[in-house]
Amino acid sequence: MREVLNFIENSRETYLNQLFEFLRIPSVSADPKYKPDIERCALWVKNKLKEAGVSEAKLIETGGNPIVYGEWLEAGKDKPTVLIYGHYDVQPVDPLELWDSDPFEPTIKNGKIYARGSSDDKGQVFTHIKAFEAFMKTKGKAPVNVKFLIEGEEEAGEGHIEEFIAKNKKLLAADVSLISDTEWFADGMPSICYALRGIAFFEIEIVGPSKDLHSGTYGGGVDNPAIVLADIISRLKDKYGRITIPGFYDDVLELTEEEKKAIASLPFDLEAYKKEIGVSSLYGEIGYSPLERVWARPSLDVNGIKGGYIGEGAKTVLPSKASAKISMRLVPNQKADDVIKKAEDYVKELAPPTVKIDFKALHGGNPVLAPIDSPPITAAKKALKKAFGKEPAFMREGGSIPVTESFLNELDAPPVLMGLGLPGDNIHSPNESLALENFYGGVKASAYFLDEYSKID
Amino acid sequence: MREVLNFIENSRETYLNQLFEFLRIPSVSADPKYKPDIERCALWVKNKLKEAGVSEAKLIETGGNPIVYGEWLEAGKDKPTVLIYGHYDVQPVDPLELWDSDPFEPTIKNGKIYARGSSDDKGQVFTHIKAFEAFMKTKGKAPVNVKFLIEGEEEAGEGHIEEFIAKNKKLLAADVSLISDTEWFADGMPSICYALRGIAFFEIEIVGPSKDLHSGTYGGGVDNPAIVLADIISRLKDKYGRITIPGFYDDVLELTEEEKKAIASLPFDLEAYKKEIGVSSLYGEIGYSPLERVWARPSLDVNGIKGGYIGEGAKTVLPSKASAKISMRLVPNQKADDVIKKAEDYVKELAPPTVKIDFKALHGGNPVLAPIDSPPITAAKKALKKAFGKEPAFMREGGSIPVTESFLNELDAPPVLMGLGLPGDNIHSPNESLALENFYGGVKASAYFLDEYSKID
Repeated sequence: MREVLNFIENSRETYLNQLFEFLRIPSVSADPKYKPDIERCALWVKNKLKEAGVSEAKLIETGGNPIVYGEWLEAGKDKPTVLIYGHYDVQPVDPLELWDSDPFEPTIKNGKIYARGSSDDKGQVFTHIKAFEAFMKTKGKAPVNVKFLIEGEEEAGEGHIEEFIAKNKKLLAADVSLISDTEWFADGMPSICYALRGIAFFEIEIVGPSKDLHSGTYGGGVDNPAIVLADIISRLKDKYGRITIPGFYDDVLELTEEEKKAIASLPFDLEAYKKEIGVSSLYGEIGYSPLERVWARPSLDVNGIKGGYIGEGAKTVLPSKASAKISMRLVPNQKADDVIKKAEDYVKELAPPTVKIDFKALHGGNPVLAPIDSPPITAAKKALKKAFGKEPAFMREGGSIPVTESFLNELDAPPVLMGLGLPGDNIHSPNESLALENFYGGVKASAYFLDEYSKID
Repeated sequence: MREVLNFIENSRETYLNQLFEFLRIPSVSADPKYKPDIERCALWVKNKLKEAGVSEAKLIETGGNPIVYGEWLEAGKDKPTVLIYGHYDVQPVDPLELWDSDPFEPTIKNGKIYARGSSDDKGQVFTHIKAFEAFMKTKGKAPVNVKFLIEGEEEAGEGHIEEFIAKNKKLLAADVSLISDTEWFADGMPSICYALRGIAFFEIEIVGPSKDLHSGTYGGGVDNPAIVLADIISRLKDKYGRITIPGFYDDVLELTEEEKKAIASLPFDLEAYKKEIGVSSLYGEIGYSPLERVWARPSLDVNGIKGGYIGEGAKTVLPSKASAKISMRLVPNQKADDVIKKAEDYVKELAPPTVKIDFKALHGGNPVLAPIDSPPITAAKKALKKAFGKEPAFMREGGSIPVTESFLNELDAPPVLMGLGLPGDNIHSPNESLALENFYGGVKASAYFLDEYSKID
C-alpha cells in the first residue's frame, strides 16, 4: 500500500484541480434548464473513470438523466466485487444571496472547499475514482473488482436508479456496495453508518355524514369524523411511547450490548440537540436514549392531518370527513408490507360503526442493516482507522436511503456508508462545504477499503 | 275576535296579491348588485306597515341595509308590548337551473307558493303585518302595543341587527318578541320553538419543534404536535359521550318530565333521519334520545383540524404545529364566557410539557329559553291551536338564532318562535315554498296570539 499512498499524497494538487472542474459544472437536476450541464457533467465523470483505468465506461440512458457506469473486473474471479455508488447531480442553490461565494466557483477558506456539491456528493464520490486510479497508476491493477454506478437524479425528487438496479442485477452484481454520501457524527470523528430505518406510509380517511352538516342542528347527535380520527390516532401509542399496533414489534431486532455501548459513547449534546429542534423536552419510547430512539427504534408520526373548515375564523360545520397521513419508521428486521398490513387491520378495528374508514397504503421501504461485525463493516472500520488515525464511530441513520435498500435486497450487496461530510457542511443549504482533510483522507480511506476488503474471506 | 277572523278570511286574495308583490322584489342581501331592490323592498314594507295602521313607520340606516321600524303603542300602558321581528331580505337563488319556476315570479302549485323568500322570511313576516292590520281595520285598535322590527341583513352573513338592538333598548323595549322564521316539526303539525342552544367557539394550536422536521431523522425522538392534538381532542369526551371539561355540566338545566314527554311524543323517524345524514349509526351522549341530544344537551365538535402536509401523496414531515377549531353547543343555563374559560383551563392542563399550546376564544353566544309554561309560550300554544285546530308541538333548536339571544338578554323580551315553514320548504335551496294554508293560518295565528297575549297579565 505504501506506493499507492505515496501516489495519493503526491496527487493532492491534481485532485483538487480536477474536483474544482467537477464542481464548476452546475449539474442541478431539479431544474430542467440545467439539462445541458447535467449531460456535460455525466460525460466528465465518464472520462474521469476512463482516465482512472476502468476497462469500460459508458453513459446509460434511463429516461431521465444518464447513469455513468464503469467497471474493471480483472482482479479475478476469486476476488470480491465492490460496487461504488454516488451521484453527480447537485441541489439547487437558492437562496443565492445567502452564499458567501459563487456556488459554482469553488473557494477554499479555513481548510474547507466551499461549493454546491462539494460534500453532496461530487467531492465524496470523486475520492473513490481517485483511489481506484491510484491502484491502477501504481500497480496496474486494483485488489478487488470494481463497478462504478454514478447517477444524476439523486437530488431530482423522482429518479430511475432503483428501477435500473432491479432490472440490471447481473450487470451490477457485487459483494458489497460502497457509498460516501453521509456525514461524520462530529468533527474529527470518522464514522460508519451501518443501518438505516425503513418506512411504511399510509393514509386514513374517516367518513361520517354524507355531507358537511350544521354543527348546531346536528352537533351531539351524530359522530364527528375529526374526533373519531383523533381517537384512533391517540390509540396508536401507549403511555410509554410504544406503538400499539398488534404484532408491530414482532420482528424488531434489539440493539446488541456492543451497539448500545457504541451509541452511548458518542458525544451527544442533549442541550444542543433540543435547541436545534426548538423544544424544551424531548419525547419518545421509554427505556431508550434519544439516539437509540431515532436510529434503532421504530416510530410512528402523523405527517399531515386535515378535516372540516381550516380557513380563518370560525365556521359551524360538522365535517363529513377527516383524514391523516401517517408514517412509521421501521428497523431491522421489520418488513414494510407486513407492518402496513398490521396497521390496516388495527385502525380498521379501532374505527367505530358510526363511520366508514378508508385505508390507503402510500409507500414502503425496508430497513437496511450491515452488522457491525460483518466483513464489509470490519473492512471499513480498518480503512477509516488507517486513513484518519482514529477509531471510527458506528452510527445509524433514522431516515431511509432507498438505493441502499435496493443494493441489499436486489443485489445482496450490503451497503457500507463511509461518508466524509461534517455536521456543519450545509448540504442542501447555502455555503455547502467539504473539509480538505476529509477529502484527501477520503481517497486514502477508499484505497484502504479496497485493500482490506480484498483480504477478507 | 269573530270580526277580525272574518276580515282575515275575506282578505285571502288581497293578501296573496300583496305577498306576490313582496316576493317579486329580488331583495338578495348577499349580492351588492341587488342593493336598489333592497331599498325598494324596505320602502315597500314601510308602506305596508303604514297601510296596516301603525302610528309611525320609518327606515333606519344602520351602515348596511335599512331596518324597517314601525310602532303602534295606543293599546295603553296597562297592555303588554309585542316586538315583531322578521327580515325582508332573501337568499341568493343559485343554482337557477334547478328552479322549476322563476324564483321571483311566485307560482302556485299543489297548494304551495313557490318563490325565493316565500317561506324565509317574507311570507312569514307578512302574516304579522296582516294580523295587526285586521285588528286596526275592524276594531280600530289592536289588543296589545306592537312594534315591528324588520331587517334586511339576516341572510347577508354579517349584519347590524344585534348592535342595533343593544344600542336601542328603549326604542325596542317590549315584553315579548314574536318571530316567524322557523319550521314545523312535520307537515300538519303546528310547532313552537321555545329554546335554542348557545355556542362557545375556540381554536387551539399545538406548537412543537420550531420548524418542520424530517420524520426519518427525528421521528420517535421528539413529540409530534398532530399526535398531541389528537390526544387532547380524544380526551374531551369520555366513553359515554360526555364532555370531560371539569364543571362543564354545572349549570346545565335538565329537561323537565313534561318536556321529555313532549319530545318523546314527536313523530321522529330514526331511519329517515339517518338516511338524511348519511350514516348507518347515530352517536351521542348515553341516556338521551337523538332529539334530546341535539336540542337539549350540550355538545362538542371539531369543526376543523389541520397540521403538516395535507397535499396529495406522502411527505416525510414531522410538523412543527397542528391546530383545531372546536365549538361547544350550550344549553340553558350555561354561559358562553364561563364555558370557554373552563375549556381553556382544561386543554392547557392536558397539554404535555413537550409542546406549547395556544388557546384562542373565537366567539360565543348564550342559549335561549322561554319555558313552555311561561305566559308567552302559553299564549302561542293557544293561538296555534285556535288557528290550525291542532295542539301544537313543542320543539327546540340545536343551532343558535343570535337575534333571539339579543331579545332575551338585551331587552328581556323572551322570544316566541311561531314559525310557519314545513320541512320540505327548501329554504336556502331551489324551489323554496310556503304552504298556502300555513300562510293564511299564520295570519290567524298571529291575530290570536296578540289577543291571547293581551289577556295574560
